[in-house]
Amino acid sequence: MSTLNDLPLPRALDRAIEAELRRIIDMKTKPPGSLGRLESLALQMGLIQRTVKPRIERPAMIVFAGDHGIAKEGVSSYPQEVTAQMVANFLSGGAAINALSRSVGMTLEVVDAGVATPLLFPFPIDHGYERLSLGLGTRNFAQEPAMSREIALEGIARGAARVRHHASLGTNVIGFGEMGIANTSAAACLMSRLCDLPIDECVGRGTGLDDRGLAHKRDVLGRALALHRNEGDAIDTLATFGGFEIAMITGAYLAAACAGMTILVDGFIATSALLVAAKIAPDVLDYCVFAHASNETGHRRMLAHFDAAPLLQLYLRLGEGTGAALALPILRAAVAFVDEMASFESAGVSNKAD
Amino acid sequence: MSTLNDLPLPRALDRAIEAELRRIIDMKTKPPGSLGRLESLALQMGLIQRTVKPRIERPAMIVFAGDHGIAKEGVSSYPQEVTAQMVANFLSGGAAINALSRSVGMTLEVVDAGVATPLLFPFPIDHGYERLSLGLGTRNFAQEPAMSREIALEGIARGAARVRHHASLGTNVIGFGEMGIANTSAAACLMSRLCDLPIDECVGRGTGLDDRGLAHKRDVLGRALALHRNEGDAIDTLATFGGFEIAMITGAYLAAACAGMTILVDGFIATSALLVAAKIAPDVLDYCVFAHASNETGHRRMLAHFDAAPLLQLYLRLGEGTGAALALPILRAAVAFVDEMASFESAGVSNKAD
Repeated sequence: MSTLNDLPLPRALDRAIEAELRRIIDMKTKPPGSLGRLESLALQMGLIQRTVKPRIERPAMIVFAGDHGIAKEGVSSYPQEVTAQMVANFLSGGAAINALSRSVGMTLEVVDAGVATPLLFPFPIDHGYERLSLGLGTRNFAQEPAMSREIALEGIARGAARVRHHASLGTNVIGFGEMGIANTSAAACLMSRLCDLPIDECVGRGTGLDDRGLAHKRDVLGRALALHRNEGDAIDTLATFGGFEIAMITGAYLAAACAGMTILVDGFIATSALLVAAKIAPDVLDYCVFAHASNETGHRRMLAHFDAAPLLQLYLRLGEGTGAALALPILRAAVAFVDEMASFESAGVSNKAD
Repeated sequence: MSTLNDLPLPRALDRAIEAELRRIIDMKTKPPGSLGRLESLALQMGLIQRTVKPRIERPAMIVFAGDHGIAKEGVSSYPQEVTAQMVANFLSGGAAINALSRSVGMTLEVVDAGVATPLLFPFPIDHGYERLSLGLGTRNFAQEPAMSREIALEGIARGAARVRHHASLGTNVIGFGEMGIANTSAAACLMSRLCDLPIDECVGRGTGLDDRGLAHKRDVLGRALALHRNEGDAIDTLATFGGFEIAMITGAYLAAACAGMTILVDGFIATSALLVAAKIAPDVLDYCVFAHASNETGHRRMLAHFDAAPLLQLYLRLGEGTGAALALPILRAAVAFVDEMASFESAGVSNKAD
């Protein structure tokens, strides 16, 4: 089993070339600052890659799937079998993240982090698939911790290892998605504990609960939080409420930052894993781009916790990494303007009359 | 010379297939509505194209460039020659819209709508270029109308004809950008008249005026508005304050809607042309996607006038069509999910337990 010591921790960005990068960006043929967020993204990617010519190489999306014992409490609109059915759907190419990652030119990989229902594949698999399962779903945290601390650490290690594999293939921009019936319940409890917020501010409708379902979910999660004492570190909190997919995404963030990747942070569940990762190593945030504001209640509050301004607000509430994928073209544009635009001098354009 | 009667006016969308489109979107393997704006975009594009399988064909960006007599009043940070210099920059591939349109896979064409400085091309031109000039810049509307009504109508006709050319090449998604030193002044006056708002709510810093420059611009434009009586129709207002590029974009919107294109609406100046187009034919709005909220003061208010929710808010204030280009990948994703996602039935995924 892994320990936290096995995991290299990301360092804060080296800002040695920041002034040079800013000068290059400012001398492009446009009023200073007029490309807005594209300019700050270009700066961030340049610092992450330690170059004045940042590039996007083999952008990848890893979707981690896992099941949750808390599903037994009726906190989701969908039955638990849907997790496995959706993994099959990912592998046959029919889910939203398939269409979106293909649309933006992102390599897609699906990881079984711990799906409860046996996966049957009566079809050719045309996407990357890795079985890293930590078990047939977590335990029900309304009754007992979702997993042990050791398993949480093992999940972090497996997620990190998967990212290192992609680093070895050349990936320098990566996003993480998830699938797991009832995982908004896990994320809401992580958020409540790690952001020190009342559970009611963290709970949303997930895949589409009605008012009655929402009230029940709040009740179940409120009681679960009361059951488990608030002690230990973020990894203990992860073990208590988290999911196998959330543990792996936590490790994936840390390894991606260590590998000098730019990380596209998706929605509510993916961001809840970042709450854990940032408690372990706050400098991971230097490598993160918050891709979108999800429509799931609580995500906006989570973003505020990070003082993050998301790139997109398209009222998505699907997960799977869909918001992260949609942000990739904006990173591409940021890299393109730095690489391809002329300077005032090279283009013979008069600069501002001042 | 053209008259308004020469221009076919767009019709409201035929909604015959709306229910079928909604059903197809709702049966995709995702909670209903969970793809947010992608779902409404897919619906809109399906209705525009009258098909349940909308496609994006040969997406194109036309940048219209023109000069403005009002530049003589010192309302911009940059000298008038920059318009021509930037056209040369567009044609040699070094401007922001070159990098961005290439990045998103959009065909780029530059139109000289009426640039004041002679254009010299001491380099190979690797982009489409059309000379449709209506003159060496407009007249100074601080003293007299920018152009005659006849010239405004001719501009509308030339912009429309250019779009019909792209329609003949197969384009079904199009964006319009602009370049013209001092054209935020023209747009602010159009906005003030056509939205019936005080000029102070319409004037911004353009390419980067300081406080003193901003105060001067407000003063100049306030006096210009007082000089010209508020009478006639939107075309008269366009003639009084507009630019040759704004007139052509007005016609371009109308022709694009008539041709059944989806229109990506860019920032402050491009949207000011839509104010004119929508006065002529309100149904043009059915075909528009508001690509982004510009950082130019007044654009947000203009969007509110249309009750429009922009797709992106990236703090751009550059024009050239940059915001419109950045929105294209979101349209691609909308089309992709409708085309490629499985339905609950075809994927064997259990639907919501209700």
